[in-house]
Amino acid sequence: MDKIRRNERMSAMMKILSDAPNRIFTLSYFCDLFGAAKSTMSEDIDILREVVGQFGLGELDTVTGAAGGVRYRATVQPEAAREYIAELSRQLSGQGRVLPGGFLYLSDILSSPEIVRRMGDILATAYYDAAPDFVLTMETKGIPVAMTTAHALGVPLVIARRSSKVYEGSAVNINYVSGSSGHIETMSLSRRAVKEGQRALIVDDFLKGGGTAKGMVDLMHEFSVEVVGMAFVMETAAPGKKRVSGQKSLMILDISQDEQPTAAIRPADWLMA
Amino acid sequence: MDKIRRNERMSAMMKILSDAPNRIFTLSYFCDLFGAAKSTMSEDIDILREVVGQFGLGELDTVTGAAGGVRYRATVQPEAAREYIAELSRQLSGQGRVLPGGFLYLSDILSSPEIVRRMGDILATAYYDAAPDFVLTMETKGIPVAMTTAHALGVPLVIARRSSKVYEGSAVNINYVSGSSGHIETMSLSRRAVKEGQRALIVDDFLKGGGTAKGMVDLMHEFSVEVVGMAFVMETAAPGKKRVSGQKSLMILDISQDEQPTAAIRPADWLMA
Repeated sequence: MDKIRRNERMSAMMKILSDAPNRIFTLSYFCDLFGAAKSTMSEDIDILREVVGQFGLGELDTVTGAAGGVRYRATVQPEAAREYIAELSRQLSGQGRVLPGGFLYLSDILSSPEIVRRMGDILATAYYDAAPDFVLTMETKGIPVAMTTAHALGVPLVIARRSSKVYEGSAVNINYVSGSSGHIETMSLSRRAVKEGQRALIVDDFLKGGGTAKGMVDLMHEFSVEVVGMAFVMETAAPGKKRVSGQKSLMILDISQDEQPTAAIRPADWLMA
Repeated sequence: MDKIRRNERMSAMMKILSDAPNRIFTLSYFCDLFGAAKSTMSEDIDILREVVGQFGLGELDTVTGAAGGVRYRATVQPEAAREYIAELSRQLSGQGRVLPGGFLYLSDILSSPEIVRRMGDILATAYYDAAPDFVLTMETKGIPVAMTTAHALGVPLVIARRSSKVYEGSAVNINYVSGSSGHIETMSLSRRAVKEGQRALIVDDFLKGGGTAKGMVDLMHEFSVEVVGMAFVMETAAPGKKRVSGQKSLMILDISQDEQPTAAIRPADWLMA
């Protein structure tokens, strides 16, 4: 192989690191890949750290110790997160998306790879320090954003089902009260999906009464798993009292009760702090 | 802003391009971002094209014409795709994952961000030329891989539901015969989700009889949408005759009918060509 120049090394390293966020790569890994000395790689990494900072492309950390190396995190700077969510809130507000019964049409937003990726990075930024072992969501609409959050955190995604399916093997079922319908529903998770003692981050699309979220918390207790955080794309302003607390939602939804209902959506307070 | 060096520009450009696969960025965009001349940016892009090629990190194209510019595609080279899917097939083979009824436990694979991302890149590589406008999947288990495929193709994901939900607005429902159960089931898609004349790529986790896949094809006809391809993570060897044809699956599953059933999984033929 010809000698690889610094600009080539750095571009390739940028791509490899950012494809696997929160994973620690040893310096030796890159030394072998590029046939370069450790001192050279250290210099590359120093420059790369400045580049991602300068252009708001995330964060590069050097982790010391036996399992040390370099790690990319898809952090979004607070100002950029605020702007992004404020702009999204504006797009979603108004009459066009309000459905009968006070619901909001969000399916396109929740399955746009570009948007869920950005939302996932913003949520991961808020939970890197909580160091979850996996992200838990409840099927269906929250899966894409839960997946991008898991990707940014470098952990697996675990999906709870509405009922146990034969192709998931033995499962733990719990009953919970759905906040919106008031009905008793069932939530199911495969026994192999998680391990006792792990740490879970709950991510879902919508928080109204909090019944489903509370169900997920209870389900985690059944597995002796600690819930280290809860995040939602959209939270309704009413009811103000939810069955869960401590959550971080991206947006707050307030639907007027007029004849022509209008959705007023704003970024959640923690983003504005 | 200080003058930005080539290695810094190229690293940032690599990240920006690869975060938005299949999207065309004008040269002017990067000229403005970095305060550099077009000739300089062209040189940067030429070097970057070689870097991604050399390290198997995808592909960089220059698109000419009025809407021209530079575009990153997350293509996986055939040899790398073969190796990856062969290794995955080995991991999934054996007795450990076979569930009662001849099913296979795949939930962990299908919700590992790292694995579904790689699978999505491999499937996108096969369908870049078909130029779909969106990826269609049926809830639930195929959502993550459909999402990563859509991301790599730079198009939205559209999710068909098992029944129409109040929060999706008016919907088109069709009935289809589930291949595995033989029952009549309903599939539903919001009217706003797709537009007449668009091109769809169907992506799902599992293909057995093909009833669900056929249902998705019929659903697209209801919307006057052309299906330009079908891709699955896992296809069963039996029945050999499916209700759909022309699909590209990543792996073929053969479960022995012994007392202790064993799964034999191999990469699909098109990957080996």
